Amino acid sequence: MRLSSRIQHVVPGGDDGWEIYYRARAMAEAGETVTMLSIGDHDIGPDAGIVAALTRSLAAGHTGYTPVEGTGELRAAIAATRPEPTAPEQVAVTCGGQAGLFAAMMAVLDPGESCVVLDPYYATYAQTVRAAGGVPIIVPCRAADGFQPDAGAIRAALRPDTRAVLLNTPNNPSGAVYDAERIAALVALAEERGLWLISDEVYASQVWAGSHRSPRALPAGEPRTLVVGSMSKSHGMTGFRTGWVIGPRAAVDRICELGVTTTYGLPGFIQDAAAHALRHGEAAAAEIRARYGARRAAALAALGSGPGFRVVPPAGGMYLLLDIRETGLTGDAFAARLLERCRIAVMPGESFGAAAAGHVRIALTVAEPLLLPALREIAAMAAGLAMPAAAGSSAG
Amino acid sequence: MRLSSRIQHVVPGGDDGWEIYYRARAMAEAGETVTMLSIGDHDIGPDAGIVAALTRSLAAGHTGYTPVEGTGELRAAIAATRPEPTAPEQVAVTCGGQAGLFAAMMAVLDPGESCVVLDPYYATYAQTVRAAGGVPIIVPCRAADGFQPDAGAIRAALRPDTRAVLLNTPNNPSGAVYDAERIAALVALAEERGLWLISDEVYASQVWAGSHRSPRALPAGEPRTLVVGSMSKSHGMTGFRTGWVIGPRAAVDRICELGVTTTYGLPGFIQDAAAHALRHGEAAAAEIRARYGARRAAALAALGSGPGFRVVPPAGGMYLLLDIRETGLTGDAFAARLLERCRIAVMPGESFGAAAAGHVRIALTVAEPLLLPALREIAAMAAGLAMPAAAGSSAG
Repeated sequence: MRLSSRIQHVVPGGDDGWEIYYRARAMAEAGETVTMLSIGDHDIGPDAGIVAALTRSLAAGHTGYTPVEGTGELRAAIAATRPEPTAPEQVAVTCGGQAGLFAAMMAVLDPGESCVVLDPYYATYAQTVRAAGGVPIIVPCRAADGFQPDAGAIRAALRPDTRAVLLNTPNNPSGAVYDAERIAALVALAEERGLWLISDEVYASQVWAGSHRSPRALPAGEPRTLVVGSMSKSHGMTGFRTGWVIGPRAAVDRICELGVTTTYGLPGFIQDAAAHALRHGEAAAAEIRARYGARRAAALAALGSGPGFRVVPPAGGMYLLLDIRETGLTGDAFAARLLERCRIAVMPGESFGAAAAGHVRIALTVAEPLLLPALREIAAMAAGLAMPAAAGSSAG
Repeated sequence: MRLSSRIQHVVPGGDDGWEIYYRARAMAEAGETVTMLSIGDHDIGPDAGIVAALTRSLAAGHTGYTPVEGTGELRAAIAATRPEPTAPEQVAVTCGGQAGLFAAMMAVLDPGESCVVLDPYYATYAQTVRAAGGVPIIVPCRAADGFQPDAGAIRAALRPDTRAVLLNTPNNPSGAVYDAERIAALVALAEERGLWLISDEVYASQVWAGSHRSPRALPAGEPRTLVVGSMSKSHGMTGFRTGWVIGPRAAVDRICELGVTTTYGLPGFIQDAAAHALRHGEAAAAEIRARYGARRAAALAALGSGPGFRVVPPAGGMYLLLDIRETGLTGDAFAARLLERCRIAVMPGESFGAAAAGHVRIALTVAEPLLLPALREIAAMAAGLAMPAAAGSSAG
């Protein structure tokens, strides 16, 4: 039976960039010990107070349908996280940040229209544009430019049917935190060309250098920005699948109508737990932030510097990008060899676009006693490959 | 800022058929006592064993990402609910039955292609087709024919771009359980014309007369049917947002890829609770079924028969359709008057399509001590309107 052309092309060619991760997961499920530095799933769980809030809500019988747009309490709590004035009615609660991203794409793209995706990008971005029937236009943020967005390069790539630019700051995988000037340039370009900015800010709570800037905080950005947020990273709540879209009321109203057809809302007991986390969980969030900050510093120290690699110190987020071009290997080949030889799973930079080719992304999501020895092994493997004797075999 | 044409037309004209429900909810929130017989949200909560399974899973730390396609355990438990041979790999777990319906539409429709929607239909159906970029073709199931599907009428309505027929048995709102012959005729038509059958079977556990038939149980139906199911009605788990799509492996694989972009999966602790419910919750499901069966019988007795209305005894599901055409009112006008005069909220038949015009749908989702007096009030209002003296004012 024929399937829709759209769904057949969400993942073109069958490779969604997660092959190394799937292979590592299969090895782990087969009983092998694999150090998983591949995906952004915390070793730090949600605070006991958040779990208790969920249990209380369940016990109180909050197991029926909820308002699809989110409970009034949760919408208000999410609105209150924003630095710029935000009404609860400007918040659509979604089943995770990914669902927020999808809803935003559905809101701005008609089939065949294009959306700029800044490279390197989170592995689902291009797929999400295609799932919404759109066409991703990949625009590189160059490694030599600190992976900052280049408004000139974006302008040059625009097509008449381009409706939006998808940006992500703090950036996964690069760790870049977009500068105020870069954000202002993106807003000016969007205003000039009538574009939406879809701003994925799920790592906003984890900034190690500089300050998080949202295009929505600028007066010209507010009416043309859809902010995607989530509880996953800030509160260790990945599995609670709680996210949102914040934007102009007219867009949010439509996104809520769409939600009636795509999910019919988020479990009420999860919404109660999320509202509790936002109102009373600042200490828990600060604890997570502090632990990642300390881990980042320890990781940079354990890795040292070359030979064979160069660390790109992340300004934000829970990942670390390692430039391994000196080894002569692609990120794919390096990651495959690392998994095979050392039983350490990292993500090839190529999974995140061409701009991060020759890099691997290390998730700082395991505790130091496991993480730091693994980082030393990675550094040693890169150093071995960088030596002239080893370089000849690097194509293997 | 311009929004996509698609999202602007999910709900055309701003009326999504839920106006009476929203008005009733607003009245209740303002402190008025309203008997809510409008939506299918149980008064019967989930069994304590299911809640305990969720709490155990949370305590065990199942708060991280899960396989987007569903845990192996839950997929196997869902597959085991089917009477026909079904592999776990033929099951895609979704964030509720509504998300399953949306995924099925995305899988079979390309933008602009059409899907037959049998009228009367659940209020989200046409919107869901439109959200997927498709065009709903409404085909009536006539009241005089017991709201059974008419393959001849469907055939006459097909267009060259029609890809699927969406059916729902047991039917919401009509309570019809489609006959074996009608299902066979739909399968034969689908085979002849290369159509998918999207079979919403979320009320399969509630059959009061006849037997539930799925097109997937027929050999010719299996390769062309996507079954949508859910835990909401069978296990009183509406707020757990747990559903699925079952179908051919090729379609399910693509639906799982789509899930990476639309939701990134269901919370693990909810999946654990759902797997527990399917494996150990048969007694709880039987209890819910028995209570609705008893309530249905009590409701039919309380309503009696006319004047002013005719009961359509439901063969399945948790609703009761009342034909109030004898009052001279539309379903909309009757429901509005009932809400205003008696503080009782029911759904106008028109919310479910033209075939149910002149009817109102009563959800049997409140306990008998509230339900039965409300039904007597409804019968009395209809009787009052049916009297010649009242008929003259029925346009008011």
